[in-house]
Amino acid sequence: VPEHTVTAYQQELAALEADIVRMGGLALAQVRDAISAISVRDAALIQSVVDQDARLDILEAEIEHLAVRMIALRQPVAQDLRHTLAAMKTANNLERCGDLAKSIARRTALMGDVDLAGILTGSMLRLGQLVTARLAQVLDAYAAHDDAAATDVWRRDREIDRQYDSLFRELLTYMMGDPRTITACAHLLFVAKNLERIGDHATNIAEVIHYEITGDSLPGTHRPRWDALQPPAGPTA
Amino acid sequence: VPEHTVTAYQQELAALEADIVRMGGLALAQVRDAISAISVRDAALIQSVVDQDARLDILEAEIEHLAVRMIALRQPVAQDLRHTLAAMKTANNLERCGDLAKSIARRTALMGDVDLAGILTGSMLRLGQLVTARLAQVLDAYAAHDDAAATDVWRRDREIDRQYDSLFRELLTYMMGDPRTITACAHLLFVAKNLERIGDHATNIAEVIHYEITGDSLPGTHRPRWDALQPPAGPTA
Repeated sequence: VPEHTVTAYQQELAALEADIVRMGGLALAQVRDAISAISVRDAALIQSVVDQDARLDILEAEIEHLAVRMIALRQPVAQDLRHTLAAMKTANNLERCGDLAKSIARRTALMGDVDLAGILTGSMLRLGQLVTARLAQVLDAYAAHDDAAATDVWRRDREIDRQYDSLFRELLTYMMGDPRTITACAHLLFVAKNLERIGDHATNIAEVIHYEITGDSLPGTHRPRWDALQPPAGPTA
Repeated sequence: VPEHTVTAYQQELAALEADIVRMGGLALAQVRDAISAISVRDAALIQSVVDQDARLDILEAEIEHLAVRMIALRQPVAQDLRHTLAAMKTANNLERCGDLAKSIARRTALMGDVDLAGILTGSMLRLGQLVTARLAQVLDAYAAHDDAAATDVWRRDREIDRQYDSLFRELLTYMMGDPRTITACAHLLFVAKNLERIGDHATNIAEVIHYEITGDSLPGTHRPRWDALQPPAGPTA
């Protein structure tokens, strides 16, 4: 394709990628609001996080619909196919981030009024900051087609895991020290896990971007499914 | 298409659906082994559950690859497209069941030797039985293209939720009664949650089957993304 010719496929792909960027912005805002809700525990904020999730569900449906139609009508191969599949995979990961943010917000309403300020302004806040930073970074990498930035997100996954492990132990220590905190801390265990899972989705998106750009999986990635996304072979019948 | 003519598309679809049935059998076996591991806590069994997961990842990759190729080359519409997308969605849900089973098995190694026989042979066992029954039922519904059976799985989702809620409260009560059980019970909270999530995936598959067969979403389903999977409109350019 000569440089000055924009094909119908390229136009559709640009629209699809713009949808992903928009969806990413919404998911990031929802995750940030959910993290605010952990310490604020305000009913209106919680409801707003829950409401925001419906828009992500609809956007994912639209993106999937567009991507399937592009694959059927344009029959893309090689990097063009990788772009379209990457959009579907990214939308799927963002939709799950929205589900997790909704779940975090709902949990905060079940915690009662036990004073856990030490955890909420310390370890939990740090975990939330790490996760939103990673999600923001991977969304920038997607918009800029920046493999180096995506690989950096993927490489830093362990920071989130370590912070989560430390918070898990801290919550158990609180529970052992004061049994009145057990119910609230049990919910916070799940809040922490959901944050860690949002971090996993950021890492998944980083792998998707790396595969989209290079056609290769990241070293040691336990996701052989990406290895199978080679361009389809010719017709079998 | 006359009844006696089997098209290349139909052959490929039959192969794809056979792969799903095989993958479903593996996922169900893995979930059953993970549930055994909760009470047995045997290192070899735990390792076996972890190892089984790699096969599911590879099968999902193969199914996705086949389905994308079918969409690109055969350009299916209406029910044919729904069959192919349903296969991809079902494989994705089964792969996540495998991840959750692996996570359950790994947790059982972290519980220490606190005596929790009361829970493990009571509420946890019942939750495990409900979840495996629902997963087995939805896999049968997929193989038999049985919408009534799939809808029944979807309708009974609340049984699992109720059993999970009751187990959650029971675990908190144990922790409050004997702080030495806090670490083990914290891991069991996640084991219970993972079982409940496997039940959610069975429900998701039920929705996929219902949509695949009827083209409609289930009433009150909070998954508008399925509404968007109408046959693609004609080319836009």
